[in-house]
Amino acid sequence: MTGVASQASLAAQVVNAIHTTIGSGPVALHEPRFAGNEWLYLKECLDSTYVSSVGRFVDRFEAELVEYTGAKHAIAVVNGTAALHVALQLAGVERGDEVLIPALSFIATANAVMYCGAIPHFVDSEERTLGLDPAALRRHLELIAELRSGKCVNRDTGRVIRAVVPMHTFGHPVDITGVQSVAHDFSLVLVEDAAESLGSTIDGRHAGTIGVMGTLSFNGNKTVTTGGGGAILTNDPALARRARHLTTTAKVAHRWEFLHDEVGYNYRLPNLNAALGCAQLEQLPDFIEAKRRLFHRYRSAFSEIPQTRIVEEPRGCRSNYWLQALLLDDSAAAQRDEILEATNGAGFMTRPVWTLGHRLQHFSQCPRMDLSVAESLERRVINLPSSPHLVR
Amino acid sequence: MTGVASQASLAAQVVNAIHTTIGSGPVALHEPRFAGNEWLYLKECLDSTYVSSVGRFVDRFEAELVEYTGAKHAIAVVNGTAALHVALQLAGVERGDEVLIPALSFIATANAVMYCGAIPHFVDSEERTLGLDPAALRRHLELIAELRSGKCVNRDTGRVIRAVVPMHTFGHPVDITGVQSVAHDFSLVLVEDAAESLGSTIDGRHAGTIGVMGTLSFNGNKTVTTGGGGAILTNDPALARRARHLTTTAKVAHRWEFLHDEVGYNYRLPNLNAALGCAQLEQLPDFIEAKRRLFHRYRSAFSEIPQTRIVEEPRGCRSNYWLQALLLDDSAAAQRDEILEATNGAGFMTRPVWTLGHRLQHFSQCPRMDLSVAESLERRVINLPSSPHLVR
Repeated sequence: MTGVASQASLAAQVVNAIHTTIGSGPVALHEPRFAGNEWLYLKECLDSTYVSSVGRFVDRFEAELVEYTGAKHAIAVVNGTAALHVALQLAGVERGDEVLIPALSFIATANAVMYCGAIPHFVDSEERTLGLDPAALRRHLELIAELRSGKCVNRDTGRVIRAVVPMHTFGHPVDITGVQSVAHDFSLVLVEDAAESLGSTIDGRHAGTIGVMGTLSFNGNKTVTTGGGGAILTNDPALARRARHLTTTAKVAHRWEFLHDEVGYNYRLPNLNAALGCAQLEQLPDFIEAKRRLFHRYRSAFSEIPQTRIVEEPRGCRSNYWLQALLLDDSAAAQRDEILEATNGAGFMTRPVWTLGHRLQHFSQCPRMDLSVAESLERRVINLPSSPHLVR
Repeated sequence: MTGVASQASLAAQVVNAIHTTIGSGPVALHEPRFAGNEWLYLKECLDSTYVSSVGRFVDRFEAELVEYTGAKHAIAVVNGTAALHVALQLAGVERGDEVLIPALSFIATANAVMYCGAIPHFVDSEERTLGLDPAALRRHLELIAELRSGKCVNRDTGRVIRAVVPMHTFGHPVDITGVQSVAHDFSLVLVEDAAESLGSTIDGRHAGTIGVMGTLSFNGNKTVTTGGGGAILTNDPALARRARHLTTTAKVAHRWEFLHDEVGYNYRLPNLNAALGCAQLEQLPDFIEAKRRLFHRYRSAFSEIPQTRIVEEPRGCRSNYWLQALLLDDSAAAQRDEILEATNGAGFMTRPVWTLGHRLQHFSQCPRMDLSVAESLERRVINLPSSPHLVR
């Protein structure tokens, strides 16, 4: 296809640029790679007969997450949604509270808020990071919120705004310092949804370790997978203890008695899945290197197409480049679906970003600020095939 | 130790009977056995790269559950608690409702009720089945409940009693026909907690297939394990469709768009865990045969100790004998803890039954009926080592 790009439609040019970067399809959006000790550890796990919610791979996986992220504590759970649910509960989110979350996020962020009986309050994004815009959030809160007895109250709804949950979109770090400052000034608990950003750092600090708690995901489409899995990160030993307790049905330790001292959850990661995770973590630096190479190749290929650019990590940050994102100019936004058709038709799996939270019928009545940037991004973002083994 | 039993303390006699049955310890309460295609299927799963919430092992596991249980539909989920949570939501359990559950059950039953915002209403057990006593429940409801516009209302609390959730204790089938009749007469939805009873039948019908929905568990301590896992069984295609939708984040099918039409859950079983499950299901008939042999051995050994008996499957039922249960006479109840000390001290892991729901602090204010039988059973039940490979 090379050579005809300049004469071709934008959609054809995009197909061509992907082809130049990764060769012929069919190619999935993101596939895991099992090139290390996966089989060995799974076999070891089976041989031990400990495949369920206790076992040495769970301990080891948590210890390795602690070492890799620099968080003081990691609690492995069944998935990223469960991690967020428990983190929000531990953040003190109660029935009837509001929680500030980006309108531009996977559904898990809003669902976790709902599981607490709370209400998502949708916040706009900034184009630079694709994440929550702290300056715009500050202006919004100055207009609608006030501190009453140390709590941030939404004057419009009368509800307490308890927490803010920025998300590091596609692995690109949000402006966490900015969010931290807003959280401080408005007395909000900062919980980082770091589901997509294992391996991403901000000024050398790992995503998810800057808020009071952070959450990771190891779903099959993530940089590192455990089949299904997630983790809660925190530096606070009391929160870590509570997280461990709540995720193991709030069972009180005893040689044989079954005592539970509150309503808990069956949320711990099985040892079998942790075994896979241990093998995957060993390859994480290689995966990220491969993803960064892929980014450079895409960037080079798409530099020939003026109406497009590949999203880059914000300055001062290191992104894991989990999912490569193509950003269309305003002038090209109308061609988004044509590009999706053409790329998927050519065997290159692509997709738009998630439908914004406030545009889902059941969240349409939730409080929100002006969401112009998120709405613009929704029209212009296309994720490209991003598996770590696509380029050498 | 043989020969001194008749002169020895009851605790020593129990230790001796266990030793006679299964030989020397240390022996766990229940260990899984991986003697089939576990390794092969896990490897096949890895090679496919589909380890997460879609994949052919999930489909196959569900199809095999359908074939084995005779339910029309099976939906595999992350664990038995998740299965119960979604089943109760689909049963129409709403915030502020009451749900009738046995006081004698694992904490998951009560927790699933709480996740729906509903309140557990504790019901007594019968000694014959260890499960919910339908005759006592009927008398209780006749006293405290009435039908208003087709709904069962608790006159004491003013709340709707929406559902009844009997549990097949240790695999021994509850009197499901009796419960079904009460459910019918009081307009209650019948959901069976069949977490412990894969392989148990009532008049040839599999536990969990008689209520509107039933739920299974494949935790590491169950007859068949997936590491962590569970399933919802139902004969109703609309409920099956809804269960599948709710457990996959309520995502609406589309080539690339992310649309969700209600608050859903990230509850689907990963393919990796389903692969283990497929291998385990192939061995289920053997596991159950081994467990039945173990029961006969225990029964024979304990027949020498007049103050004890091994719990047997109720007439007309076939139990999977998941956990073997020793039942002490009233006269021996005071020695329960001494027996627990002696058996665990001798390397035979034993344990009492779960602390009754109403005796947990955070459930102590929940509505309940007279729980004399459950309270008596709590003082007298001891679970014995029950792994399938303990006897040949």
